[in-house]
Amino acid sequence: MAELVKTNKMFGGLVKRYAHQSTQLGCKMHFSLFTPPAATNGNKVPVVYFLSGLTCTDENFTQKSGAQRKAAELGLALVAPDTSPRGLGIEGEDESWDFGTGAGFYLDATVDKWRQYRMYSYITEELPALLRSLPELDVDNASIMGHSMGGHGALVIGLTKPTYKSISAFAPICNPSVVPWGQKAFEGYLGEGWQEAGKRYDATELVRQYNGPVLPVLMDTGTDDDFLEKQLHPWTFEKAASGKLEVENRMQPQYDHSYYTIATFIDDHLAFHAKHLTSS
Amino acid sequence: MAELVKTNKMFGGLVKRYAHQSTQLGCKMHFSLFTPPAATNGNKVPVVYFLSGLTCTDENFTQKSGAQRKAAELGLALVAPDTSPRGLGIEGEDESWDFGTGAGFYLDATVDKWRQYRMYSYITEELPALLRSLPELDVDNASIMGHSMGGHGALVIGLTKPTYKSISAFAPICNPSVVPWGQKAFEGYLGEGWQEAGKRYDATELVRQYNGPVLPVLMDTGTDDDFLEKQLHPWTFEKAASGKLEVENRMQPQYDHSYYTIATFIDDHLAFHAKHLTSS
Repeated sequence: MAELVKTNKMFGGLVKRYAHQSTQLGCKMHFSLFTPPAATNGNKVPVVYFLSGLTCTDENFTQKSGAQRKAAELGLALVAPDTSPRGLGIEGEDESWDFGTGAGFYLDATVDKWRQYRMYSYITEELPALLRSLPELDVDNASIMGHSMGGHGALVIGLTKPTYKSISAFAPICNPSVVPWGQKAFEGYLGEGWQEAGKRYDATELVRQYNGPVLPVLMDTGTDDDFLEKQLHPWTFEKAASGKLEVENRMQPQYDHSYYTIATFIDDHLAFHAKHLTSS
Repeated sequence: MAELVKTNKMFGGLVKRYAHQSTQLGCKMHFSLFTPPAATNGNKVPVVYFLSGLTCTDENFTQKSGAQRKAAELGLALVAPDTSPRGLGIEGEDESWDFGTGAGFYLDATVDKWRQYRMYSYITEELPALLRSLPELDVDNASIMGHSMGGHGALVIGLTKPTYKSISAFAPICNPSVVPWGQKAFEGYLGEGWQEAGKRYDATELVRQYNGPVLPVLMDTGTDDDFLEKQLHPWTFEKAASGKLEVENRMQPQYDHSYYTIATFIDDHLAFHAKHLTSS
């Protein structure tokens, strides 16, 4: 069971920070949970996960997105996990800002040295199981979103687990196999043969093989995002998803890769998810 | 003239960070400015200052308050200054979190060692003069607000300069002369005789002598604010201001001293200021 380490009231709901010992990752992890005012008197509320980008912890989204205002109004819980295991003591884990600590890439590593980097299983299995112990959450009624590396995570997880009702992303890394951030992560965590092994963690590759339900997907990326051409490739994903998913791929003029963009469009994303989540 | 160091688009407006060499403080300073979509085509918009609390820079409010959404809607510019001079190299300036760097206390120090700590003159004279070079700002049409130490700053400045149309504060230090944070600052910056000299920087003392116009004041403080009894004393100010100012002193049940409280009630504060500012 997770230990509640901090509670702050916000927009009539509660921002709670939890700590727990992760069995998948073999270390102590934190996550942040917002529960809206509707989560009282035995009511269960739907859950929206937000997966953060490189260098972030569970607190960036919680402190900077302003998402809680709309989530309070719509009756949604928000779950913000951390982005990697912490403090494992693996040689080199803190050397790069785009690999190791803060850069788990939402995959299960197969290279022995990084075998505890199992963020895919952590997010899709361990965390939802843990959340079931919180009676105010309707854990089976969930959507997933994320930013940058976390947008990649949201797309990959949404496409490979039938659990999530809708997917959204800000500035997602849509085709990691062909861009520097993705290649570095795949080679480092998956080792030799990463080109093939990486396909199951590449949203564009996954959607090419996808034959599941036509999931709704909302994506927002700024035209002034410095990483757009080199790392993100939203158009590649949109094209590959044609006829398989219901993708709305929005380009936002002059917006960049920062939390200011997330704050600006988060209300749209929450309204989008609320439409696809059922009220309990 | 200030140098623009960063621009981010947000809610259709612009978050801009400026740097400039301060003559009052003798060091390089940063401030953050949000201009709403209305600040285009030669339109001038009213200005609301936000003075931050202990340990903050110009970026805490900008990143964590979510204020820009409502400011964009209301057509208000937001100015967030830093909280002290930076990097002066004064012995001991970085030793305490509640004195020296990050703790300028919005006063003009008279102790020789701290003579460059002139945040009162910086905020009331140098910064407005600097802002006049930005054609989109209606600098004479301004209101002022702040948090904690910055709430103290907003009340003191609002009461001593007739410039500001309305004042608001989150968890302000209302009677610094009688609480630990204020006494430490006054003694350190004002030296011997601080008990008397501090009166001109104590909102409660100031309002007792006040005979200016009946200014509107909005204050929000959480009942779970850990500093309420020891440092803030909003009721003392409210009582002293009776019949002299139009004070709405709201206590918010279960809210605390954090930015989550500011984010929750910032819309009310901006609407309050907008009501007292004139459109150009």
